[in-house]
Amino acid sequence: MARIAPISGFPEWSPAQRIVELQVLDELRQVFELHGFASLETRAVETVEQLLRKGEIDKEVYGVRRLAGDAEATQETPDPGKALALHFDLTVPFARYVLENAGHLQFPFQRYQIQKVWRGERPQEGRYREFLQADIDVVDRDSLPFHYEVELPLVMARAFAGLRRLGLPEMTIRVNNRKLAEGFYRGLGLTDPAAVLRAVDKLDKIGEQGVVGELAGIGIGPDEAAKALALAAIRGTDSSFVDEVRALGVRHDLLDEGLDELAQVVDAAARRAGAGALVADLSIARGLDYYTGTVYETTMAGFEQHGSACSGGRYDALASDGRTTYPGVGISFGVTRVLGLLFGAGLTAARSVPTAVLVALADEAARPVAEQTADRLRDRGISALVAPEPAKFGKQIRFADRRGIPFVWFPGPDADAADGHEIKDIRSGEQSAADPLKWAPEPADATPGVVLG
Amino acid sequence: MARIAPISGFPEWSPAQRIVELQVLDELRQVFELHGFASLETRAVETVEQLLRKGEIDKEVYGVRRLAGDAEATQETPDPGKALALHFDLTVPFARYVLENAGHLQFPFQRYQIQKVWRGERPQEGRYREFLQADIDVVDRDSLPFHYEVELPLVMARAFAGLRRLGLPEMTIRVNNRKLAEGFYRGLGLTDPAAVLRAVDKLDKIGEQGVVGELAGIGIGPDEAAKALALAAIRGTDSSFVDEVRALGVRHDLLDEGLDELAQVVDAAARRAGAGALVADLSIARGLDYYTGTVYETTMAGFEQHGSACSGGRYDALASDGRTTYPGVGISFGVTRVLGLLFGAGLTAARSVPTAVLVALADEAARPVAEQTADRLRDRGISALVAPEPAKFGKQIRFADRRGIPFVWFPGPDADAADGHEIKDIRSGEQSAADPLKWAPEPADATPGVVLG
Repeated sequence: MARIAPISGFPEWSPAQRIVELQVLDELRQVFELHGFASLETRAVETVEQLLRKGEIDKEVYGVRRLAGDAEATQETPDPGKALALHFDLTVPFARYVLENAGHLQFPFQRYQIQKVWRGERPQEGRYREFLQADIDVVDRDSLPFHYEVELPLVMARAFAGLRRLGLPEMTIRVNNRKLAEGFYRGLGLTDPAAVLRAVDKLDKIGEQGVVGELAGIGIGPDEAAKALALAAIRGTDSSFVDEVRALGVRHDLLDEGLDELAQVVDAAARRAGAGALVADLSIARGLDYYTGTVYETTMAGFEQHGSACSGGRYDALASDGRTTYPGVGISFGVTRVLGLLFGAGLTAARSVPTAVLVALADEAARPVAEQTADRLRDRGISALVAPEPAKFGKQIRFADRRGIPFVWFPGPDADAADGHEIKDIRSGEQSAADPLKWAPEPADATPGVVLG
Repeated sequence: MARIAPISGFPEWSPAQRIVELQVLDELRQVFELHGFASLETRAVETVEQLLRKGEIDKEVYGVRRLAGDAEATQETPDPGKALALHFDLTVPFARYVLENAGHLQFPFQRYQIQKVWRGERPQEGRYREFLQADIDVVDRDSLPFHYEVELPLVMARAFAGLRRLGLPEMTIRVNNRKLAEGFYRGLGLTDPAAVLRAVDKLDKIGEQGVVGELAGIGIGPDEAAKALALAAIRGTDSSFVDEVRALGVRHDLLDEGLDELAQVVDAAARRAGAGALVADLSIARGLDYYTGTVYETTMAGFEQHGSACSGGRYDALASDGRTTYPGVGISFGVTRVLGLLFGAGLTAARSVPTAVLVALADEAARPVAEQTADRLRDRGISALVAPEPAKFGKQIRFADRRGIPFVWFPGPDADAADGHEIKDIRSGEQSAADPLKWAPEPADATPGVVLG
């Protein structure tokens, strides 16, 4: 017999956890669509060539080949232009999709994409080999208006406000600007701003002294290192951070441009969504080299040490076919990563089924009326289930209780007449007459709520 | 530069087609949940051992291994208990999930599962290598009440009624019973009913004479072959088919049991969902050996020659751990297969974006009010987009028109006051005053409709 066991790094949620996940995905989708983002799904596989074109073998790509043997995909003929592999993010497939379909798309093109991705990393807490990402991106041809760098994180912030109402912790989107940091380092006279950025990005892991040491290793003296660290310490929920940066006494045109853009992002966000909607955090570097303007990271209250829950930024060239360049701005929410942390902390749904009402069954002869009664409730959007077999009512109440179903319905003789029907709230024990054509649960009971178990 | 091209058998829908797919999935999910089915997602991979345990190498399984090399998954050490492969259906993963989690599940366990599956088949019309399936199953421990064999196809039939309202063709679920056919063949004195069933199952492909020839090849004479074909010709929307079978003069206990069950299914369906809700079709065999009772197939009006859109049946042992057996009944809808056919016939959505309203932008100074106006609409569930850049209104109307957005909004000076706001229906050209806090589109315009393009 085949061994039955979990596979490390490939999580599977319980039915109650899956209810939470669906509510999260519904909220994300609703907000994305209200803001005009079109849904897109790309195939799970890309060519190996496409996935590795930036030399990212460290992504631990999963190759895919037919077990039955297929000359075009076997290990023996590893033509990277034909061999297939599972995508490791949604950005590379989106860039390929845009190039492949540019002639049929309307630009600027706003899409959201909620799909599983796969990475063959060593599994550890908060790291998965299969996980769900929810991405929004805007991509344009040749040039992309700056205002999308404000718009994108605000769309995510609205989705997070919805998740907060569901019962998830508060998420804070933190913004910085690559021009600001690069201009500051250049203003300090440092010639390799990318190397400085990489060192400062390790601040959380190695501390201030560690960063100073790393910077010394690439020939940067203590004064410049102190200024770089002072810049990284600046935070703000309005554009007053600009004065703090100015007070460090560094001047550079690119710094001015970055300060102006970051101030615009923070101020516009405060105007549209309230103060603190986005927080300027000048320590944010983002490891990826292709960001060229605003960059985003997100901390989840209570889980700050687990890193960013949602990240992204502006890239001047998401894709290019040699003639046309497609700049974009995107932000990616790690659904599985966030839910894994929250499920680990006990978050779950109030029940393991969508069902609000169990229709009891006195005997097999009553099944047609019980089914019709359930159908009348379903016709009005109420999830209902008929008891699988006739049983004493106490047993049927236990059946509902084990699943978290709040109501048990005792049908009368006719599903289309109110006479003789009763409903019991099994939490309070309260029982009362009810009409299959009129009764409805409170909204909070119609759909399972999210609870901290 | 990496080559950019479609990969045969891995379909990607356009944004407008994806809108249709989402509406189809929403309808399926809503109906499944109203009937108490819990959502489940299993990981995309199973162990090779698990996938091949029934010797189904003909499923053309896709193996998965880290390109970077991982001793436990390389071709050199093909331990089928550890090597991974993509699932080729949702039934095998569900059976594994039930065994793995039996101690935490409440039985009977009703789940729906909507996920991609992968098969390395030669691509051809209507055959994909990556495709979306929507399955519902009920599984119980030791025994499963018969009434679920009626319930399951009726849930699917209700989902299909919803798809019909969306604009998809009519789907007809056809039912048969394995006991009926087996009992009939045994009553005829035939000792290998499975072989007879396999021959009769080819009726559509090889015709009556072909089936007679195949049956002759396994030693079955013309009289018995004629009776087997007469049985397969019987159809009915009520239990009158029973008399037609009886008239063939064959008697067997298993035949009686099958006739009784099939009559119950058809009659109960007619009672709950109207005559013809399910059609008895005694030609249906289903190739798979594990069905033991009612079996289902589905034809889509206008696409009958493309085979079954939705199939399933009753199995006495979906899963077993040696001590406990889990019988079930399930039915699987081929979402990608059906949509591929319909998209090929021109089905699409009325627009390529979720957006109902484009808010026009006279100049960059008007952006804050335009954004607030869009936000007021979004607050009330209306999908809105602000024009990406200021432009002449004619250009903005063309922007909306190219995406199928029906309305263009011309904002007044203040998003929170009605003064000066106007909205234009760009299809009729009609323009009128509108209040950002009150105006709403007709429901038919709020969400993109499905149209035959």
